[in-house]
Amino acid sequence: MSNSEQEILQRLADLMESRKPANGGNPETSYVAKLFAKGDDAILKKIGEEATETVMAAKDARVSGDASKLLYECADLWFHTLVMLAQYNLTPQQVLNELARREGLSGLDEKAARKDV
Amino acid sequence: MSNSEQEILQRLADLMESRKPANGGNPETSYVAKLFAKGDDAILKKIGEEATETVMAAKDARVSGDASKLLYECADLWFHTLVMLAQYNLTPQQVLNELARREGLSGLDEKAARKDV
Amino acid sequence: MSNSEQEILQRLADLMESRKPANGGNPETSYVAKLFAKGDDAILKKIGEEATETVMAAKDARVSGDASKLLYECADLWFHTLVMLAQYNLTPQQVLNELARREGLSGLDEKAARKDV
Amino acid sequence: MSNSEQEILQRLADLMESRKPANGGNPETSYVAKLFAKGDDAILKKIGEEATETVMAAKDARVSGDASKLLYECADLWFHTLVMLAQYNLTPQQVLNELARREGLSGLDEKAARKDV
Repeated sequence: MSNSEQEILQRLADLMESRKPANGGNPETSYVAKLFAKGDDAILKKIGEEATETVMAAKDARVSGDASKLLYECADLWFHTLVMLAQYNLTPQQVLNELARREGLSGLDEKAARKDV
Repeated sequence: MSNSEQEILQRLADLMESRKPANGGNPETSYVAKLFAKGDDAILKKIGEEATETVMAAKDARVSGDASKLLYECADLWFHTLVMLAQYNLTPQQVLNELARREGLSGLDEKAARKDV
Repeated sequence: MSNSEQEILQRLADLMESRKPANGGNPETSYVAKLFAKGDDAILKKIGEEATETVMAAKDARVSGDASKLLYECADLWFHTLVMLAQYNLTPQQVLNELARREGLSGLDEKAARKDV
Repeated sequence: MSNSEQEILQRLADLMESRKPANGGNPETSYVAKLFAKGDDAILKKIGEEATETVMAAKDARVSGDASKLLYECADLWFHTLVMLAQYNLTPQQVLNELARREGLSGLDEKAARKDV
């Protein structure tokens, strides 16, 4: 099983799909199925929560010199964005495509390429 | 440079590195170099900000029936987590590896596999 | 105008009202009028942003031993909630009344008194 | 019992103090005592979480035409900032004083009066 970006994200996206109620996801045994069962707000609340935990872990990393918790929290944040994408019938591939599109513009991070900064 | 999505996160990670002040990133012409020049708090503030914009776009998507802004904001959130990872000398591959590690556990989203829920 | 803190929130609420476009608020000279002119999302984005800055300042306070920045950021967060309340035609007194109502329940912070925890 | 701003906030601040472990707050029966027992991160995480819920409620209010949930969530956000202030040995009066100080400056919301906008 490959660990390329695309493949990991695709496998996770497939897993999210399988946890949807319509696909037999069981809220009793699966954390993700439970989030889907609760709906939009439960999922979106996690985005705000995990973002906050990521920020706290980053602050801690400067004090402890250890960034492992930051890595963990960032994975949690990405994980919940994948749940959100599935909830809105979007895919991580679409997010990657949007990032690639920006990179293709003359200078990925040129202000002109971004709607807002 | 290939446009394969397989490596887009890695290409972005390389780009982030090139924008660091030590590598000649120019805050006058590059948005990312400007963030690096400002430091941790400016970058972390963007995480909270983009998370909030993602949540707002998700709420809007239910009203408009159009998820394109949500896709855009999610890309923005991922983009700024890539800036943050570079700032802390972490890589997107490490985040993906952490996600793959969880997937490898008996049931990606089993509560037992997560420190907190 | 008295400087009694008793009425500071009310005075600020009055000021917010006066900054609304309909009441002659000028986006060229007033920060609050500018937020009103931009609308809901600009104001709500500030809530997420100021919450993140408050959290960062709290983390910093433990390292520096100085909570003055936390106090400043918390004031900023309250300030922007006042802008938001005005935007939605709510008043700080209504928020205080809700807090007083909870306090009046048998045990302000009993879990039973809260919809969610 | 008066419901003036200052008095409601002071009573809540007193209540927070009484819930601290050192003052006999019982995590088994009090939600606030439980937060204090958990420490900084549990409290700060709530700031991010309640800010996100406030933003979501504001978005919902535009659709439903009913701002009562927004009022409730804003009260929740203020409530948890009071827990945070107590955790850092700060008082709501100090926050009010900071807000009054800004108001006293020539134009509360003049950009010059604020460190950042």
